[in-house]
Amino acid sequence: MNNHILRCITCKKEFTPKPGLYYCVDCGYIMGTLEVIYDYETIKDNSKVKQKNFEKKASMYQFDFLLPTESKCKFDEYVGGTPLYKFDLLGIKDVLVKYDGSNPSSSYKDRASSVAINRAIDEGNNTLFCASTGNAASSLAMLNAHTDMKTYIFVPATIPIGKRTQLEISGAQVMAVEGTYDEVYDLSLELGLKKGWYCRHAAINPYLLEGKKTGAFEIVIQNDFTVPDYVLVGVGDGTVISSLYKGFWEFKKIGLTDKIPRIIGVQAEGIPAIKAVFEKGKPYTPHVIIGETVADSIAVGNPRDVIKACTYIEACNGFFISITDEEILDAISELGKETGLFAEPAGAVAFGGLKKLIYEEKITDSDKVCLVITGNGLKDVNAVKDMIHTESLTVDEVVKRLEG
Amino acid sequence: MNNHILRCITCKKEFTPKPGLYYCVDCGYIMGTLEVIYDYETIKDNSKVKQKNFEKKASMYQFDFLLPTESKCKFDEYVGGTPLYKFDLLGIKDVLVKYDGSNPSSSYKDRASSVAINRAIDEGNNTLFCASTGNAASSLAMLNAHTDMKTYIFVPATIPIGKRTQLEISGAQVMAVEGTYDEVYDLSLELGLKKGWYCRHAAINPYLLEGKKTGAFEIVIQNDFTVPDYVLVGVGDGTVISSLYKGFWEFKKIGLTDKIPRIIGVQAEGIPAIKAVFEKGKPYTPHVIIGETVADSIAVGNPRDVIKACTYIEACNGFFISITDEEILDAISELGKETGLFAEPAGAVAFGGLKKLIYEEKITDSDKVCLVITGNGLKDVNAVKDMIHTESLTVDEVVKRLEG
Repeated sequence: MNNHILRCITCKKEFTPKPGLYYCVDCGYIMGTLEVIYDYETIKDNSKVKQKNFEKKASMYQFDFLLPTESKCKFDEYVGGTPLYKFDLLGIKDVLVKYDGSNPSSSYKDRASSVAINRAIDEGNNTLFCASTGNAASSLAMLNAHTDMKTYIFVPATIPIGKRTQLEISGAQVMAVEGTYDEVYDLSLELGLKKGWYCRHAAINPYLLEGKKTGAFEIVIQNDFTVPDYVLVGVGDGTVISSLYKGFWEFKKIGLTDKIPRIIGVQAEGIPAIKAVFEKGKPYTPHVIIGETVADSIAVGNPRDVIKACTYIEACNGFFISITDEEILDAISELGKETGLFAEPAGAVAFGGLKKLIYEEKITDSDKVCLVITGNGLKDVNAVKDMIHTESLTVDEVVKRLEG
Repeated sequence: MNNHILRCITCKKEFTPKPGLYYCVDCGYIMGTLEVIYDYETIKDNSKVKQKNFEKKASMYQFDFLLPTESKCKFDEYVGGTPLYKFDLLGIKDVLVKYDGSNPSSSYKDRASSVAINRAIDEGNNTLFCASTGNAASSLAMLNAHTDMKTYIFVPATIPIGKRTQLEISGAQVMAVEGTYDEVYDLSLELGLKKGWYCRHAAINPYLLEGKKTGAFEIVIQNDFTVPDYVLVGVGDGTVISSLYKGFWEFKKIGLTDKIPRIIGVQAEGIPAIKAVFEKGKPYTPHVIIGETVADSIAVGNPRDVIKACTYIEACNGFFISITDEEILDAISELGKETGLFAEPAGAVAFGGLKKLIYEEKITDSDKVCLVITGNGLKDVNAVKDMIHTESLTVDEVVKRLEG
């Protein structure tokens, strides 16, 4: 485990880590405001930390010098190291596409769950809990199934069948609650913290961003240390954008790169909660939006990582945009046809966002762009079922069609 | 491309490869009987072919010295190199679990599709076709989406929604035919060969086994060149077992290992077509079985790779078993709870088969066992939907349950 402190991004108060400490005692627990800060000067001098020492396909634990865990789990070796493809898309050459659908549970969330499980072991906890729109929950349930620790999962009863199936298959204790994600979140936090269970809420527990930031590290090393100009990613709670910023920032901090990309958070027009906060300006004050979207993973009306997300996006000169559900579904289809990659709705928004920004001439063909696809489309096939032709043909009809 | 000939496993006739040559002119095209045979002595002397030169996570193209392709596609770099986990299962320590659900299209079939696409380019063909119970089709459609080549897919209209969605998303020409897999297969072969399209039928086109065999290579290198005693895998057409045998055989042939494992083909009791042929004995004569199973990927009544599959299983002292649909569904659930891995029905049969063989004392805790999980469970969540608790709780009920 690496030496680190926790520092509040709002009041700058510093804390020595201890089990159960997830939030700033002054700023409260409803929002994630703590950052994990390492001794970057020492890390910079570590002779292992050289560009040539990284592998394009190694697991996220090749970055252990910037991770806050000591224990190891069976899945660690296969979390991260996901593909970075290059496709010519929408008139731009070599668009980078980071595809995290090939993680063990088929989403980006495995990066955080792996850290959560290892931290729980480090701290001697025997139960983890999580509220989730689906991916974080199924990720935790699956990665924790083989350990001796228990998993409590709180989800809205309406999550897609793929995600619900993963939960049940893994043997987790599933609380499918009649309520929105935001209500489920509050309930889980109240109960889980009271019980002393290990908190796998990436928007509160600062350690989980440490897992997620490895996606940024991988984009850099897999692109031969050339940092893209823009990184686009879907935004719900805000944790993925926060983590990407932290990753790019740390690699620059320790001298492995000289640049942080402009990060663009893409939200669903039906529920653009963080975008609203960001555009209202400082101080970034959370407020709740009621709304909905086909992209269930980012259907978040009360984003808990809003302070970090807005602060970081500002720091990298990034911004937020939103696209409609129709544009999201079109994005899944168009991305599939152009690349073969099947993204869940919240993953395809990055592509939809790029399309919009090209149309608005905010991104041009000379820009270096990276899209982050956070989950496998198989997670939520119902979302696109209306796009599927259900026509079936008789043998004679096929013959006629192909030979006619 | 490596020098090779094609040799008929039945009549031993040898052929010089040429475009469109998929089957033995004497033995006919309905069954796959050709084998791709390299110059193994030359390969053995290749200084690159040493145990130490392999990487545990590299793509299947690290084995290019035993592959029949020259062209390259974007996905090549990320096909293969899938996880090999070790779990203590059913009383056996360190059971190897090869999990191919993390390939680009989430199944084992990508290994064959990648070779098919590259061979089609090598041969100057501009269209590929495939009949499939689902995985081979979605694999080909996705991996070929970004190329300039066309994809024609023939599937039974009843395939699971996950697989159908992948097909439609990728923009392939989908012929969803009212008929069984076997009828669809015959139709596609007749039309596709007449048109001169490149044939992505792993049971006929011998080159596709060359892609699939890399799974065996990876099991060996990821287990530090210790070959397991038993390898269990689900069987439909028979191509995966054929390919595994070929892989283990070739590594022994070129001196990288000294053993071939006993391969156990696990079939669904509802439609155990290859098992019936094998147990009837030589000469292995195809005959058609009518039946069904929840494991759609192995619901094959007229297996086209039966001759190779039976010949190879005999050669390695392997055998076939079958399990019921109930045992298959139990296997998905138990594998999930023990490991966290989510397998599609046809993937989980390997685990179900192991359970049966342990019960029958044919495999004991001193045996070294490997299970091959060929597809991600997200491909077919409907298969397990009856196992899912659909109970939902109010907030008050959750509080009562956890605090009571």
